[in-house]
Amino acid sequence: MTTTLETPAPSRILIDGRPGDRLSVLDRALHYGDGLFETIRLAAGAPCQWQRHMDRLILGAERLGIESPETALLAAEAAELIDGQGEGVLKLILSRGDGGRGYAPPPSAPPRRLLLIYPLPPAQGPDWRRGVVVRHCQTPVSINPLLAGIKHLNRLDSVLARAEWKDPAIAEGLMFDANGDLVGGTMTNVFLWDGRCLMTPPVDRSGIAGTVRGLTLELAAHLGIECLVMRLDRAALDQACGLFLTNSIIGVWPVRALEGRRFDLALLPWDLLDRLYQAACTPG
Amino acid sequence: MTTTLETPAPSRILIDGRPGDRLSVLDRALHYGDGLFETIRLAAGAPCQWQRHMDRLILGAERLGIESPETALLAAEAAELIDGQGEGVLKLILSRGDGGRGYAPPPSAPPRRLLLIYPLPPAQGPDWRRGVVVRHCQTPVSINPLLAGIKHLNRLDSVLARAEWKDPAIAEGLMFDANGDLVGGTMTNVFLWDGRCLMTPPVDRSGIAGTVRGLTLELAAHLGIECLVMRLDRAALDQACGLFLTNSIIGVWPVRALEGRRFDLALLPWDLLDRLYQAACTPG
Repeated sequence: MTTTLETPAPSRILIDGRPGDRLSVLDRALHYGDGLFETIRLAAGAPCQWQRHMDRLILGAERLGIESPETALLAAEAAELIDGQGEGVLKLILSRGDGGRGYAPPPSAPPRRLLLIYPLPPAQGPDWRRGVVVRHCQTPVSINPLLAGIKHLNRLDSVLARAEWKDPAIAEGLMFDANGDLVGGTMTNVFLWDGRCLMTPPVDRSGIAGTVRGLTLELAAHLGIECLVMRLDRAALDQACGLFLTNSIIGVWPVRALEGRRFDLALLPWDLLDRLYQAACTPG
Repeated sequence: MTTTLETPAPSRILIDGRPGDRLSVLDRALHYGDGLFETIRLAAGAPCQWQRHMDRLILGAERLGIESPETALLAAEAAELIDGQGEGVLKLILSRGDGGRGYAPPPSAPPRRLLLIYPLPPAQGPDWRRGVVVRHCQTPVSINPLLAGIKHLNRLDSVLARAEWKDPAIAEGLMFDANGDLVGGTMTNVFLWDGRCLMTPPVDRSGIAGTVRGLTLELAAHLGIECLVMRLDRAALDQACGLFLTNSIIGVWPVRALEGRRFDLALLPWDLLDRLYQAACTPG
């Protein structure tokens, strides 16, 4: 199972509603990472978990003081771009727009919308149940309570963590902050399982409130599985009898091995995982 | 004295050596803030402190695993762009270049060079000696030892801090990390003065190793003024009898008032400050 999510160029692009592949060098996303993004799975020609992505985008815009996105317009542009595309990935970037030199946001710049369609990575098939191999990363996650949770464009920590390995057999790397607290994978949220109860790190100082993380918390509650949102360190990882990773493109990845330690996948709460995969990867 | 550094559009731009004002939507600086920048003062048609800027850029490229910039090429492009421009600001962005979707850096993308010339902000005249008014910011600085010190493009913390005020009478805001440690201004390094000795925060967890910060440490040593690089908190600020700010465009700003507290500027080490301004704002 090849698990890299690296994919080639996008097949279709809209910039502020118009086809194109170039944008202004004055864009503040380029100068400061001043913006937000969403990465949305497409299935049967429609986006999955659209409302969760829009909710997080709106929250992020509030946090950054960017004009709230018109979600109906985004939906219309997404539909136009997706047209005829069965499976794939829609990446949506909301930048603060153009600006002069200096950090101060311009008084009334309209945000810029970028929508890009990429092919679905090859690994996202039914063999997700076989699990993935995961490692630890040395790169610390940035700590900033004001930026935690939202999906902003300041992603150098994930970039440097993901650059730590090239072996395609390793699907993901776990990241910790400078205090030693577990935060998640470079592109995923993490859930530990102790045989009775789930645990996942809070996203109040670092990390992203993933859409499938939210779905997991809801589905677990629905199934009567306790899930604790709590600080977790290396020792907590050592004590877990299993773990799995979530994001909007993969849905859910059970972890088969971590740094040489192998896990018995049969111990995981499969009822939850199956529902999770189904919900994450179905349009709606 | 109007102290805003917000300036209008750049007058001249080179992208990978060619005039232009648009770039690829696949640029990783846009997607992840995956790159570095330098902001260089121009005087008498030449860059100030060029070597210090290049040294930091090279260090940053090493840290991010970006191909080291060809500084001779950058110098030649800068000279071409500056041609005939007496005063101004040269902003140089080194992006990792284009990439596919996903955090993993592409195997061998050549970095992209962006050079932009902006007018010098109006405030940078001889009245710098009158000092500036400064406030505290609520926005925390991001903590990440691996990203500290270098001038990377993940600057949302400074953007949000600078968005906290619009009053043009306030020149700068001081920022702290989530532990309460003083880091610097939104766009400056900070030095406290207790009447005998300078103190400035380390840049090992947050902050940028400013070119004029480096110059200050060297000039202070040359003048026999002790300068301690140490963690500083709000209490240290309260105990200081004066402070000043540095960056490559302003050179040095003595602080006249901070959150209502007024400082006697006469107490500052003016010999150092005058030499600092001179060195920071003179080509070479």
